[in-house]
Amino acid sequence: MFNIAILGFGTVGSGVYEVIKENNTLLKKKTGEGIAVKKILDIREFPGSEWESLVVHDIKEIIEDNDIDVVVETMGGTSPAFEFVRDALLSGKHVTTSNKALVAAHGTELLKIAREKNVNFFFEASVGGGIPIIRTITESYAGEHFKEITGILNGTTNYILTKMDTEGEDFEKALSTAQELGYAERNPEADVEGYDTCIKIAILASLATGKEVNFEEIHTEGITKIDTTDFEYAKHMKLSIKLFGDSKFEDGKVFAFVAPVMVERDHPLYMVNDVFNGIMVEGNMLGKSMLYGSGAGKLPTASAVVADIVAITKNKDKNVATFGWGDEKQNVVDMNETSHKYFVRFKGRDAKFIDKCKETFKNAKEVYLDGKDEFALVTDLMKERDFLAALNNLGDVIKYIRTKIA
Amino acid sequence: MFNIAILGFGTVGSGVYEVIKENNTLLKKKTGEGIAVKKILDIREFPGSEWESLVVHDIKEIIEDNDIDVVVETMGGTSPAFEFVRDALLSGKHVTTSNKALVAAHGTELLKIAREKNVNFFFEASVGGGIPIIRTITESYAGEHFKEITGILNGTTNYILTKMDTEGEDFEKALSTAQELGYAERNPEADVEGYDTCIKIAILASLATGKEVNFEEIHTEGITKIDTTDFEYAKHMKLSIKLFGDSKFEDGKVFAFVAPVMVERDHPLYMVNDVFNGIMVEGNMLGKSMLYGSGAGKLPTASAVVADIVAITKNKDKNVATFGWGDEKQNVVDMNETSHKYFVRFKGRDAKFIDKCKETFKNAKEVYLDGKDEFALVTDLMKERDFLAALNNLGDVIKYIRTKIA
Repeated sequence: MFNIAILGFGTVGSGVYEVIKENNTLLKKKTGEGIAVKKILDIREFPGSEWESLVVHDIKEIIEDNDIDVVVETMGGTSPAFEFVRDALLSGKHVTTSNKALVAAHGTELLKIAREKNVNFFFEASVGGGIPIIRTITESYAGEHFKEITGILNGTTNYILTKMDTEGEDFEKALSTAQELGYAERNPEADVEGYDTCIKIAILASLATGKEVNFEEIHTEGITKIDTTDFEYAKHMKLSIKLFGDSKFEDGKVFAFVAPVMVERDHPLYMVNDVFNGIMVEGNMLGKSMLYGSGAGKLPTASAVVADIVAITKNKDKNVATFGWGDEKQNVVDMNETSHKYFVRFKGRDAKFIDKCKETFKNAKEVYLDGKDEFALVTDLMKERDFLAALNNLGDVIKYIRTKIA
Repeated sequence: MFNIAILGFGTVGSGVYEVIKENNTLLKKKTGEGIAVKKILDIREFPGSEWESLVVHDIKEIIEDNDIDVVVETMGGTSPAFEFVRDALLSGKHVTTSNKALVAAHGTELLKIAREKNVNFFFEASVGGGIPIIRTITESYAGEHFKEITGILNGTTNYILTKMDTEGEDFEKALSTAQELGYAERNPEADVEGYDTCIKIAILASLATGKEVNFEEIHTEGITKIDTTDFEYAKHMKLSIKLFGDSKFEDGKVFAFVAPVMVERDHPLYMVNDVFNGIMVEGNMLGKSMLYGSGAGKLPTASAVVADIVAITKNKDKNVATFGWGDEKQNVVDMNETSHKYFVRFKGRDAKFIDKCKETFKNAKEVYLDGKDEFALVTDLMKERDFLAALNNLGDVIKYIRTKIA
């Protein structure tokens, strides 16, 4: 029997328990020996529950238990999750976690300890929930040089943007609907400001490069400033607005950012709506592919954790070195040096000013909405630094949104 | 150095050579030792090419070469591919193949030999080209009971149906465009009659159940009878028509078929257009997810083969038993016993006949196209046997198409 301990019996932790119970026979068949939850670390007691007898309150009871093969970390946060996971790895136990904050903040160190101790530190559930993006990058696309990995990685913001797009709701209304449905937290900052997406794209970029990409270097904008007029323009141009975690890899450089972008229908991520996530991967040999599914949720996320456990049963005695990244650091190119086609809204309709803008942004497409005292341009591809300088020079800017237009 | 031999230096075989050459440094990093093509089996000589010196014409030179670790089979067809692969496995070599016909016809036996010889028989490239569907089923979703695996698995027919849908072309015109572009063979039967899709869905159903699903038991219809009027109805109902390889798993039973179906916009496969493939997977824990990408093409397919080779370098000394299926056979439920909502077209507009049809198909939705001397119904969910009996009783049927309407 393969014994596991679950740290933190919240949504994902209890989901892992449920998946192991529900698919018990199947897991026995897949692993040969079967998987059993031996201990659960939580501050609660769960009196009367069927797992009451498994509950412990001291991490030592798990770390020092030689019968426990795998520690499942589903507490969230970086402390004490980091210390617990580090000690578990140091004691020779394998670890799987759903905790993206932990992976982004301490992944490099934990992966190093895992290599040294010849155990595995897996984290399929930390990005994309039930979407198998991490094994796809590390195993299925093992022979690829990645050119791009870009995703809609946050269900909350995607739900809000979908509502704004399809029902014309404003941000506040769509957010409060999302909160009522339990899709958004009461404090939605981590989602709507793009921080959650930032951490996830940092993890994916680290896997793609095999080096540590620091999430703090990734330019991150949220969706709070997107308004109904932006969506009116988008609709007029047959585009949608999505929050992208975007990463491109070129000649050893990494370009990455998180921001709302205007997307055209042909883009593989255009149709990713509601709380769903989608991740587009482009490799130098395989071209583009896309994975789509539930990016969060108790059981999809727990299922990804359980897949990690099954993978550990098949790699008990060896560290799977392709899963993860090394100690080397990979800088992210300054956002000012990246290039985009920009959608930009200007105040008023003064003919002279419009001409001046068109002169500044050669070949830009003009867009006018009926009855609005403003106009918009869609620029050619240009460097962000030059674009911002030009805007600064022109003035009367309402806002800009980067676009994904071929 | 990890030495491979390529059997058949056609599109995919030469693609494998190209991927290994192009991503050589990366592959060395991923595998530690690097991958080298040591021999190529082909009837041609390739004089003056850089691989000329690697070419052999006798399979024995590969089977009996102890330095060759992996045989890559990209010849296609079942003979002599089967004999070559069998002998390679029996001689203790690992095999990866892109040959779906081989996997569907002889997979069970070859997987058994691989288990007995403690080597691996991998075939990621046989279904979905660059879409990592097989590792997703066998590894990423290792903890799932599958409820459904349904795909648009053939790029040729998807291209034809997309053309018919978006440009109003008839089947013959769309097919000849596809042939001009090289998307369809001069003899397109295997694609347009659904045989290619049938073999692929049989492989996926075998992986999902862990048992042999015989492709010959899968009810298979092609797209040759789909006409422009069908697409007019579809458009009227905001549906599209796609060729599905469909498999469902319930209480140990397998329901599988290949046929054109009318799909609504909410379906994850609705947006899979042109030559792209898409595969929807539903598990009992993870819910629905979808993988999308290039289902064929030299480099995407070759990339999948190379991912198999990398996986073999990590499992040199052991058979990965979860990859594949056992000896047990799994019957497919008779198509007559499956249930669908049907779109059905009847001749004329005789009020009495319409009433009679509506009486037969309770709760059916009526659909009328302007200026057509015919009408259509969309039935409730009903058993195929009952549906066909009712049609037989009513007469004046033009055709029916199964639907995927929630």
